[in-house]
Amino acid sequence: MTVLVNDTCPVGRAANVVGDRWSLLIVRDVMDGLHRFGDLQRNLGVARNILTDRLKRLVDAGVLATEPVEGGSAYQQYVLTSKGAQLFPLIVALRQWGEQHLFAADEPHSVLIDTATGEVIAPMQATNRQGEVLQASGTAVQR
Amino acid sequence: MTVLVNDTCPVGRAANVVGDRWSLLIVRDVMDGLHRFGDLQRNLGVARNILTDRLKRLVDAGVLATEPVEGGSAYQQYVLTSKGAQLFPLIVALRQWGEQHLFAADEPHSVLIDTATGEVIAPMQATNRQGEVLQASGTAVQR
Repeated sequence: MTVLVNDTCPVGRAANVVGDRWSLLIVRDVMDGLHRFGDLQRNLGVARNILTDRLKRLVDAGVLATEPVEGGSAYQQYVLTSKGAQLFPLIVALRQWGEQHLFAADEPHSVLIDTATGEVIAPMQATNRQGEVLQASGTAVQR
Repeated sequence: MTVLVNDTCPVGRAANVVGDRWSLLIVRDVMDGLHRFGDLQRNLGVARNILTDRLKRLVDAGVLATEPVEGGSAYQQYVLTSKGAQLFPLIVALRQWGEQHLFAADEPHSVLIDTATGEVIAPMQATNRQGEVLQASGTAVQR
């Protein structure tokens, strides 16, 4: 298979933006409804300077935006942009791989449910245009 | 939405294993057919000590395995385990987000094709059990 120059590889560019543990966990938490610095800091248990750095990078990359908290408070909060919200499949892919491979059979973990049906969401898979499931071995990178 | 303790969150555990730029790019490259240290090092342009460290972590995590190169060479090569191969949806999610958001409209990038049809694969989306597409806002994390 063709070896890629990183610069023209969308995987490489995406990894430059979100290929970082804290950045992924921040995106997860904002998706889950945490919007304030203090809430993120407490949930993640991350050092303030690291959180500040990662939030700035995500804002600079257009993944997060800041907006004033309602009610005239001096605080600002972090929200996902449309671009950031579209990281949902990536977060789901992380979750489902983690569920499948990083927990013992009897070990409890959170699940992601469809709020309309109350059911756990379906396993997410890559497919072709006909809806057939693809593995890496059935695909090729074309420059 | 319920705030999670990281330890029971599959996203958190997965991010601990592959939430790192070099680890993601190594998985991408092995999926694309690069198996030797030297080939990975050249393609990624990564320092040898960092590559050694990330390969060791991925082997320890059961994402990669080492095997002797055919023909009795003293070299070993890196292959994906079944667990590692199942990172394919994650790599596709990175790719598709990158394609959509990190390239100018007229900027060329590689594409991932289904080798059986020669067509670009479909956009991957999270769905419920009925096949309806879900956004983060239509889901909830349940402990």
